[in-house]
Amino acid sequence: MTTTINGTRIAQRIRSQVAEEVATAARSGRIPGLATILVGDDPASAVYVAAKRRAIKEAGMRDFHRFLPQHATQDDVAAVVDELAADPQVSGILLQLPLPPQLDADALIDRIPVTKDVDGLTTASAGLLARGERGLRPCTPSGVIELLDAEKVPLKGARVAVVGWGELVGKPLTHLLLRRGATVTVAHEFTTDLAAVTRLADIVVVATGVRGLIGPEHVRPGAVVIDVGIHRTPSGLSGDVRSAELDGIADRITPVPGGVGPMTIAMLMVNTLRAAQWGAEREAVVA
Amino acid sequence: MTTTINGTRIAQRIRSQVAEEVATAARSGRIPGLATILVGDDPASAVYVAAKRRAIKEAGMRDFHRFLPQHATQDDVAAVVDELAADPQVSGILLQLPLPPQLDADALIDRIPVTKDVDGLTTASAGLLARGERGLRPCTPSGVIELLDAEKVPLKGARVAVVGWGELVGKPLTHLLLRRGATVTVAHEFTTDLAAVTRLADIVVVATGVRGLIGPEHVRPGAVVIDVGIHRTPSGLSGDVRSAELDGIADRITPVPGGVGPMTIAMLMVNTLRAAQWGAEREAVVA
Ligand SMILES: NC(=O)c1ccc[n+]([C@@H]2O[C@H](COP(=O)([O-])OP(=O)(O)OC[C@H]3O[C@@H](n4cnc5c(N)ncnc54)[C@H](O)[C@@H]3O)[C@@H](O)[C@H]2O)c1
Ligand SMILES: NC(=O)c1ccc[n+]([C@@H]2O[C@H](COP(=O)([O-])OP(=O)(O)OC[C@H]3O[C@@H](n4cnc5c(N)ncnc54)[C@H](O)[C@@H]3O)[C@@H](O)[C@H]2O)c1
Repeated sequence: MTTTINGTRIAQRIRSQVAEEVATAARSGRIPGLATILVGDDPASAVYVAAKRRAIKEAGMRDFHRFLPQHATQDDVAAVVDELAADPQVSGILLQLPLPPQLDADALIDRIPVTKDVDGLTTASAGLLARGERGLRPCTPSGVIELLDAEKVPLKGARVAVVGWGELVGKPLTHLLLRRGATVTVAHEFTTDLAAVTRLADIVVVATGVRGLIGPEHVRPGAVVIDVGIHRTPSGLSGDVRSAELDGIADRITPVPGGVGPMTIAMLMVNTLRAAQWGAEREAVVA
Repeated sequence: MTTTINGTRIAQRIRSQVAEEVATAARSGRIPGLATILVGDDPASAVYVAAKRRAIKEAGMRDFHRFLPQHATQDDVAAVVDELAADPQVSGILLQLPLPPQLDADALIDRIPVTKDVDGLTTASAGLLARGERGLRPCTPSGVIELLDAEKVPLKGARVAVVGWGELVGKPLTHLLLRRGATVTVAHEFTTDLAAVTRLADIVVVATGVRGLIGPEHVRPGAVVIDVGIHRTPSGLSGDVRSAELDGIADRITPVPGGVGPMTIAMLMVNTLRAAQWGAEREAVVA
């Protein structure tokens, strides 16, 4: 029997913990705040930002939000980022991706100060992660780690296949897994025999953006499968894994929706809280 | 028959190319310069720094050197780094490691400006590498890539085992290999069955600091083996691989000495040249 991992429940537990810590911080007058920046009319982005803002308010944190029109210029967005960077009430800044094509997303992301980089996507945060130094880690890969920890899946010495070497998931996740002592194989579009690689793994994490890429031929009996993909289809959301076909093969598997997705939002709450703490420490040092 | 890869010859070719480019740059009055900083009395460090300075002079570049005594303080070394950082004649700064125990090496490395970071070891350079952006890459792993290229070993789609997830070699090398389209497995001290992992690889790169770790049981017939380890023994230098035992098994193997070692110095020359070009471009933009 294959167990479906309940990401929604694990995420809810983490969000309750964050809410408790926020309540404690609020009693000493320090309320963390997240600023979301939405540029343009992408409907999926609007949905994601709305969900993040709801979660922030539910956790008792301050919700700052900026909307810029589809035709906003690089300078327009840069000015908003700079203003939020300077605002001591704003603990974290999240620039919702993708941005309209006239904008240089990398340059805008890199304007976010490292202490407010709750998405962990700046070059500076990537450096801190690579060097194993203190910093904010990207939400989706840290959500994957939290999920595996909550399920008590051992990482030290485990063989893990990471399918997809993307900026948001594969790259940072590889660092997080290696730091935990896993033996990691990274596969991607140029991998010649993907099934041969993934079948050796105790844990398979899939983050390729290719719908239904992974099936029973890719998974060793008893493996844990984490599906990071999200695809909108006429019949609802689906992932990079053909989960139904893995029933009876995988030991455990994350569903889409209700697996990694909710963990991403939960980790954004955790990062906003951590950013507020980090910011406060820095102020204390300067003062 | 196993072929021994001649790293010395490949390195010499690269150094000649650098010398030619330096000569061209010199005709327009721009001579790259490397500043080496040696702190204390470690004899191996003194030997390494001397070799680097010799290579710099041979390539026609300017040799700046600073020596600080064993008991130098954090502020002493920081002041030297800052002075070199501000000097427009200094294209690159190399802080020879290890440093005496009273010094915080990470903090000192991170004072080196990213455009002068010829060792590629700052947090900022690690971020640029992780994000695939322009930057200076650590010399030893880029030397490994150059060696494989010179030997015409295909990387795209190849299965590579990287043994050792260290700051100097394993971590940055993993990024460089993935960028070239290799499927990479990273193994380390917590890997449970190392031979099972490395025997699947077309290319095995070993950088653990464990003398003689890799033997015939770890290598698939026909594989290419790159030995990054360097150990001083009474009978001379040796590596992390028991090379003699791989004769007739590996297709090609790097010797110690004469393999990766000379490539490291050659790539330092390349990085110093690139740093000079990068610095000049930055000045042009500012002017
Ligand atoms: N659940 C969430 O909250 C969440 C958050 C972020 C991203 N995602 C999902 O994760 C996916 C990955 O995100 P990203 O930004 O890291 O990805 P990306 O687009 O930057 O990279 C995709 C990677 O997949 C690899 N790939 C493509 N086709 C492949 C194939 N046929 N076989 C093997 N590998 C292949 C590519 O080589 C690349 O390394 C996205 O497509 C998205 O669906 C989900
Ligand atoms: N040839 C050169 O020019 C050159 C330059 C730099 C470093 N080196 C050599 O490369 C080695 C690695 O350098 P670094 O700074 O990246 O290393 P490091 O010390 O930072 O990391 C060593 C890695 O090896 C792993 N390891 C230790 N024991 C192991 C075992 N029994 N099995 C598998 N893995 C094991 C550790 O887990 C760790 O990931 C050094 O020891 C040095 O000898 C050579």
